[in-house]
Amino acid sequence: MSIATGIIGASGFAGGELARLLAGHPEFGLCYASVPGHSPDLVGKPLAAVHPHLRAGRAVEALPSKNGGSAGSLELVSTKTSEAARRCEVVFLATPPLVSAALGPALLAAGVEVVVDLSPAFRLRDPALHSKWYPAVSRPPERTAVYGLPELNRALLPGADLIAAPGCLATAAILALMPLSGLDGVRLSSITIDGKAGSTGSGHRLRSSGLHPVRSGVVAPYAPAGHRHVAEIQEALLGKGLATVGGGLRLGMSVFGVDLVRGVSVAAHVIVDPDSRLPSEGELASLYRDAYRDAAFVRVIHWREEAVPLPDPKTLTGSNYCDIAVFQDADCGRLVIVAALDNLMKGAAGQAIQACNIRYGLPETLGIDAFAVYPG
Amino acid sequence: MSIATGIIGASGFAGGELARLLAGHPEFGLCYASVPGHSPDLVGKPLAAVHPHLRAGRAVEALPSKNGGSAGSLELVSTKTSEAARRCEVVFLATPPLVSAALGPALLAAGVEVVVDLSPAFRLRDPALHSKWYPAVSRPPERTAVYGLPELNRALLPGADLIAAPGCLATAAILALMPLSGLDGVRLSSITIDGKAGSTGSGHRLRSSGLHPVRSGVVAPYAPAGHRHVAEIQEALLGKGLATVGGGLRLGMSVFGVDLVRGVSVAAHVIVDPDSRLPSEGELASLYRDAYRDAAFVRVIHWREEAVPLPDPKTLTGSNYCDIAVFQDADCGRLVIVAALDNLMKGAAGQAIQACNIRYGLPETLGIDAFAVYPG
Amino acid sequence: MSIATGIIGASGFAGGELARLLAGHPEFGLCYASVPGHSPDLVGKPLAAVHPHLRAGRAVEALPSKNGGSAGSLELVSTKTSEAARRCEVVFLATPPLVSAALGPALLAAGVEVVVDLSPAFRLRDPALHSKWYPAVSRPPERTAVYGLPELNRALLPGADLIAAPGCLATAAILALMPLSGLDGVRLSSITIDGKAGSTGSGHRLRSSGLHPVRSGVVAPYAPAGHRHVAEIQEALLGKGLATVGGGLRLGMSVFGVDLVRGVSVAAHVIVDPDSRLPSEGELASLYRDAYRDAAFVRVIHWREEAVPLPDPKTLTGSNYCDIAVFQDADCGRLVIVAALDNLMKGAAGQAIQACNIRYGLPETLGIDAFAVYPG
Amino acid sequence: MSIATGIIGASGFAGGELARLLAGHPEFGLCYASVPGHSPDLVGKPLAAVHPHLRAGRAVEALPSKNGGSAGSLELVSTKTSEAARRCEVVFLATPPLVSAALGPALLAAGVEVVVDLSPAFRLRDPALHSKWYPAVSRPPERTAVYGLPELNRALLPGADLIAAPGCLATAAILALMPLSGLDGVRLSSITIDGKAGSTGSGHRLRSSGLHPVRSGVVAPYAPAGHRHVAEIQEALLGKGLATVGGGLRLGMSVFGVDLVRGVSVAAHVIVDPDSRLPSEGELASLYRDAYRDAAFVRVIHWREEAVPLPDPKTLTGSNYCDIAVFQDADCGRLVIVAALDNLMKGAAGQAIQACNIRYGLPETLGIDAFAVYPG
Repeated sequence: MSIATGIIGASGFAGGELARLLAGHPEFGLCYASVPGHSPDLVGKPLAAVHPHLRAGRAVEALPSKNGGSAGSLELVSTKTSEAARRCEVVFLATPPLVSAALGPALLAAGVEVVVDLSPAFRLRDPALHSKWYPAVSRPPERTAVYGLPELNRALLPGADLIAAPGCLATAAILALMPLSGLDGVRLSSITIDGKAGSTGSGHRLRSSGLHPVRSGVVAPYAPAGHRHVAEIQEALLGKGLATVGGGLRLGMSVFGVDLVRGVSVAAHVIVDPDSRLPSEGELASLYRDAYRDAAFVRVIHWREEAVPLPDPKTLTGSNYCDIAVFQDADCGRLVIVAALDNLMKGAAGQAIQACNIRYGLPETLGIDAFAVYPG
Repeated sequence: MSIATGIIGASGFAGGELARLLAGHPEFGLCYASVPGHSPDLVGKPLAAVHPHLRAGRAVEALPSKNGGSAGSLELVSTKTSEAARRCEVVFLATPPLVSAALGPALLAAGVEVVVDLSPAFRLRDPALHSKWYPAVSRPPERTAVYGLPELNRALLPGADLIAAPGCLATAAILALMPLSGLDGVRLSSITIDGKAGSTGSGHRLRSSGLHPVRSGVVAPYAPAGHRHVAEIQEALLGKGLATVGGGLRLGMSVFGVDLVRGVSVAAHVIVDPDSRLPSEGELASLYRDAYRDAAFVRVIHWREEAVPLPDPKTLTGSNYCDIAVFQDADCGRLVIVAALDNLMKGAAGQAIQACNIRYGLPETLGIDAFAVYPG
Repeated sequence: MSIATGIIGASGFAGGELARLLAGHPEFGLCYASVPGHSPDLVGKPLAAVHPHLRAGRAVEALPSKNGGSAGSLELVSTKTSEAARRCEVVFLATPPLVSAALGPALLAAGVEVVVDLSPAFRLRDPALHSKWYPAVSRPPERTAVYGLPELNRALLPGADLIAAPGCLATAAILALMPLSGLDGVRLSSITIDGKAGSTGSGHRLRSSGLHPVRSGVVAPYAPAGHRHVAEIQEALLGKGLATVGGGLRLGMSVFGVDLVRGVSVAAHVIVDPDSRLPSEGELASLYRDAYRDAAFVRVIHWREEAVPLPDPKTLTGSNYCDIAVFQDADCGRLVIVAALDNLMKGAAGQAIQACNIRYGLPETLGIDAFAVYPG
Repeated sequence: MSIATGIIGASGFAGGELARLLAGHPEFGLCYASVPGHSPDLVGKPLAAVHPHLRAGRAVEALPSKNGGSAGSLELVSTKTSEAARRCEVVFLATPPLVSAALGPALLAAGVEVVVDLSPAFRLRDPALHSKWYPAVSRPPERTAVYGLPELNRALLPGADLIAAPGCLATAAILALMPLSGLDGVRLSSITIDGKAGSTGSGHRLRSSGLHPVRSGVVAPYAPAGHRHVAEIQEALLGKGLATVGGGLRLGMSVFGVDLVRGVSVAAHVIVDPDSRLPSEGELASLYRDAYRDAAFVRVIHWREEAVPLPDPKTLTGSNYCDIAVFQDADCGRLVIVAALDNLMKGAAGQAIQACNIRYGLPETLGIDAFAVYPG
């Protein structure tokens, strides 16, 4: 274990996933796990008390090559910046944006080398945009973070001290749309993203609509318009020359909760200007394959050759891949890009570790290269 | 029991739903249930052998006011046109389109008064469109059916002998879009329908992708483009003055299988021409409420006032309602219309009976007015 | 509408099911729905705000023969004994036992004619047993209720003013075991009930273990021993001569949560004394069919003749039936009785109305005779 | 890659799980994958065509230390004994018992060093018992296999050439019951195992009852008595001195399908002779902890200290652990042992590899030591 690592907000779903991955990671050693001050009932308990899959057992204990056998026994502590800084080189924040906005800079100031924040506190670069979408989350104006989508910002990661891990829907949407900037002589007129999301995306918050009897079996339009991830997507695409704000290319998103614990699927419905040419499915597929030729965790699917319809988050449980397929609908001048991922992996913890691997010059796939568990 | 009624294709999911509803219907008396010739193993068995919820019991037997107590005991027979015609005034066809195309006209010729076909065999009025989408389904050119969407074609139903019950996705989409024809001074530029569908929509067909381990937990892009219901929707909208073919308004649909047994949800993403005005959410809501003021089975939802996000098929299990909500997304000049229904009720059997109620001058809601069973 | 009826605790799952059934009941007219004092956010809202399936619509409004079209519009009020008594002849209590223990007698004293309590407050006749299992629930010693299982206590219901509706698991277990008292010359040595239960049985209580991500997909041993329904079962069986306490016949229960919203299934594993004879499956089946020959809501299944394994709560959603099948396992001297029901129907609201129908001399099946919605 | 390994029957669920595990195993190199002769449509396709989670991607390809990056590209071939023998030292049979009974000996005769059969063909040692439960499966009388439950037969594995991997329910039941042989001065009178099983246990067989609409949401009594795994359990327990046949200790099992893709849970209800002493829960817990002190893959749960009720297969998806908890029910002289596992891991592929690891003197946990993916 060479790099001492901590998780703040270790009791939630993303925190649990970080712990699972770090427990099996050859370089990052999980040595600190804390909960917010308002969860005193958890303080002093072992991690495994809230994440039962992390309980110890002979199998993991017996393995000298893993540092994670005893991860489940790590005691949850109350969050203290100084203690975290003393014990960790790297800290992952799986906390609400209000908490992250304060903790991130404080931890860096206290000597932590790298903070990876999984909340939206530092995702938006433009302060005006940030204020519009997260008015309650004030953050130090001088602090900027690297938006931690490796496929977009790989070059910026090695020097980063503050990394903002992208949102799960935003990750899928950006990966689905980025390559379109490579289309030659095609004018896109609008993009509508229709997202389907599992229940872990809503976290551990206790409310009636999250209870099993109410949440199971739904197709619930929880964000029919105005989802906050739209801003992330716009900023990312702008960097690729796809000006969806003020540039004529309109972008909207609607998100539905479906009966899924893990997983996100987005369909990007891209309307091509009727006076412009419509690229063929083959052209699109080539474009996407080229764009992701070197991407460790993006796969472009041959839809027509698969036994089951893909991309599907069901086939990605526990995997860090984002799968993408492209379609052309000639009848209505539409391109459809479907992208799927595991929202706790490529949509949260897995991607955070991927970015951190790159930050430290480690192999990008270290500790996050497991196949999906399927069917499950 | 005044009107003798039969079901051909009684062993499938739509057939079972028809049987359940007819068993409790005060005017249509279920007296004939048949299966295709190639299901000899089912012939001679009682209906309840394939639809376990229809088994008899003291409760239903004891009720003189119901004609359906013994519905489950009705013996499945092999389909014979002459026998069906001899025993039934009304026949519901829950058969594949190839079978319906032949049986429908034959039954009418043999003296059946009304045939309601749940397959797509007779849905498309335009023969060219029919040939394009259903090349294998030849039908007598002189035979036309009433497209049995009461909210669209109420006036045509009373005289009808052949009624084509709409598809489940088409029903939701058409109901979601029809009122847009009433928008004043708004130019729509494209419509993309993103549909989410439960597994009963795929029927009883035995194939690996329909098995529980494979089908549960999916978000499966089974028809990312080119779904056949698009043609139905286009014909229906054309009748309302929304020319989606050759008229500048482009229409496409993508359909995903989700982990749901019953239910369909569609989101119609309507892009308004950037040079045109964007109607407000209030204007839209008024338009929709007016449009469906007298509709027995369409409810327009006040999304912001609900405890859980609606419309949601989960809240409609066993109900014949189609719920609709409207949204405006000013940031991208988009209207979003979400519609949900139970695909076996308003999307199949319930709607077929609704149309038939109207055909016979019965109260439209007779036998299909139950509240949804929720949560379930 | 002849009998004015109220629901106290109308915002929970059992409350919602009572409202759905009463809205369609020809004799009990729902005219009062209240919530506990500590739910001020719900007061003033319509019932449909918490039970979205009860929203009004043209279909139900248009039906003069139903009194329930506007049930969803009924305004939730804060519970006041005097108001409830002024407005209702019958009150259903869907409240926690502590609340019911106080409200039941108070409502009767204030002039309500019949109180049907769905909590365990009045289920146990023996005060000692009650104190053992519900030490926190003190109730007036002079108050006794009729245990409202019609198949057991039909004769006692007509005169009752306080009816204690049985628990869902207890209902299934008692119906599964009662007929065994008719076995001739067979000494039973022990009974183990293994119950599987859906999530609505745990109610609306907000806690982490009830959230969708945590509760879905489980087989959770939430009561491996010592479930409180055991006492109900023992009292009921004692009345039938099956002395499971102090009589040599030992009775235990283990309950597992499974991924089900509605539904309960129990397997009663009955060990026959090795020195006694083991009844054949045919003898058992005859015994059970005879026992339930006149039961409106109990069906004895021919397991070997069904297309899918039954009894199964999946086939009973929205139905008031309890289905039962009997098996003999010669290899180990065991009888297995499997019983299934919908926990919100025969296990709660449906059974409460069944008992109340009998109380008022109405047909037992009035308003609760719908077929199950299946598959759903 | 030191040991060349093949899978026969690679297209099923157990075959897919074997492929996933072998692809990540440091010592067994997957180099052969075949399907039965009657699946010609699969021959020539890559493994990933039937197991979409095994598709290649940059992440796995880039890893030199894994031999499995290209596992998904392995071409499925038609099964030929000679070819399998030429290419493999070890062959896993994920085939039906009839096929395994023939293939197992043939492969060994052709020079394969070790055959691990996942079917029941070679599980029962006693030929009479085998003939009783598997009358259609004739096997060479001189061929005996080691019953591959490492916790029972560790010592026999190193020399084995034919290993019969135990059934999933049998594994859970035997691990739940074995330690009871260590109880001092306690006479057990009967054991009833109540099993709950997910849908992957039924395999890929196409039949109506396995379709998603029919199979989801069930509690289906598919084997209420007489499950074939009982014989395995009896043989294994006999070896531990628990004579459940002819020895006074009666053993029965009932199995229910529940809405789960992966996972098995068994509750062993153990009735203690009323004239004997009843061990305390503490005594039991100590006994079990001692029994499994050195077991790599068995964990004994402190039920009362967990945040969610355990053992639960939901917390074991993708893990090779079997979790066990013990309870005492004093009221009825009963012990309850609950055991849960992932039926494709410890119940099939994981355990097969565990046995094979031991066979080759490798660390027992090699390649099967991943934490469960949870929640999922």
